[in-house]
Amino acid sequence: MEFSSKLLENAVNEMSQLPGIGKRTALRLVLHMLRQPENQTFQLANALTKVRAEINFCKSCHNISDTVLCEICSNPKRNSELICVVEDIRDVMAVENTSSFKGLYHVLGGKISPMDGIGPQDLNITTLVEKVKTGEVKELIFAMSPTMEGDTTNFYIFRQIQDYNVATSTIARGVAAGNELEYTDEITLGRSIIDRVPFEASLKS
Amino acid sequence: MEFSSKLLENAVNEMSQLPGIGKRTALRLVLHMLRQPENQTFQLANALTKVRAEINFCKSCHNISDTVLCEICSNPKRNSELICVVEDIRDVMAVENTSSFKGLYHVLGGKISPMDGIGPQDLNITTLVEKVKTGEVKELIFAMSPTMEGDTTNFYIFRQIQDYNVATSTIARGVAAGNELEYTDEITLGRSIIDRVPFEASLKS
Repeated sequence: MEFSSKLLENAVNEMSQLPGIGKRTALRLVLHMLRQPENQTFQLANALTKVRAEINFCKSCHNISDTVLCEICSNPKRNSELICVVEDIRDVMAVENTSSFKGLYHVLGGKISPMDGIGPQDLNITTLVEKVKTGEVKELIFAMSPTMEGDTTNFYIFRQIQDYNVATSTIARGVAAGNELEYTDEITLGRSIIDRVPFEASLKS
Repeated sequence: MEFSSKLLENAVNEMSQLPGIGKRTALRLVLHMLRQPENQTFQLANALTKVRAEINFCKSCHNISDTVLCEICSNPKRNSELICVVEDIRDVMAVENTSSFKGLYHVLGGKISPMDGIGPQDLNITTLVEKVKTGEVKELIFAMSPTMEGDTTNFYIFRQIQDYNVATSTIARGVAAGNELEYTDEITLGRSIIDRVPFEASLKS
């Protein structure tokens, strides 16, 4: 791509470093900014600089937080005996949206993936094991995505904490609400039969 | 979407102002930045601020340029009697990529589109008409997208300059290289038959 301006070329190159944004999309976005009031671009640039420079992670659960301890960890109404282990902060937001969970979270910051060069030492596993060691945690809920990497991560953590007195569970796998049975993959459908629940229990939610 | 951090929320909100970027994508992009070295985000923010604050348009053709007169307009080897009229700077890049055009450009900055509230006065049409009035331009090539708005814009400009001694043409519409005939729409295919070219001429490029 030949640019008529170095400034433009530079902005497009930086923009296209972002995942899923190629040169063409980057050019489209930058040209859009040039058509909008200056302030809009300055505010975007400021917000990005600020979030990157000042970002802070909760020292207990590693969720993104503006305070030392995040709102969830510092909420006395949450059940600190129950910890939901998730991959990243988007999963915290997803589970919080369900309003079905009143315990705390632990954000690993990724999943074990040798293909991507991510090992257990790159994740927040040590602090999780430390929490379990204190004996204050009664149950860990593994809420990783049901992929090979997710399962590997669950299993790795399970091995680290199995000698301590803590219950472990994983979120249920099954047919999603509104999904057609005939289009559900066989692993999920099979799992949903093995893990069937009493009909009366299914009426509760 | 509930955020655990105001800084994060602010960055995601600003990012999702961009066209085609929703809240989820914005969050994905911002989280990606948080995982990368700080410098990458700072460079992006700088590049955006700089391009928006210092952007300059060629005073002759209105292409984006770091100099008063862009590289194309100031190149003595280009034919200044031939002007290719395009919608925006991406079209200049597209035509330049073909290496088939040695004249100059005129960037309108959009197309007449009453639905979007864009009228002739919002486009760089006056300066184009001025150029034609000087008598130095021999031919205008309309290279707008073949849409209703593009055609309207072409026709509006044509009416402004028809009394002056200048030839006008539009880029050919026809079957694209590599396209199957049976999947070509009938307007294009019909046009390509009416505008057929001598076979020998078609061998040239």
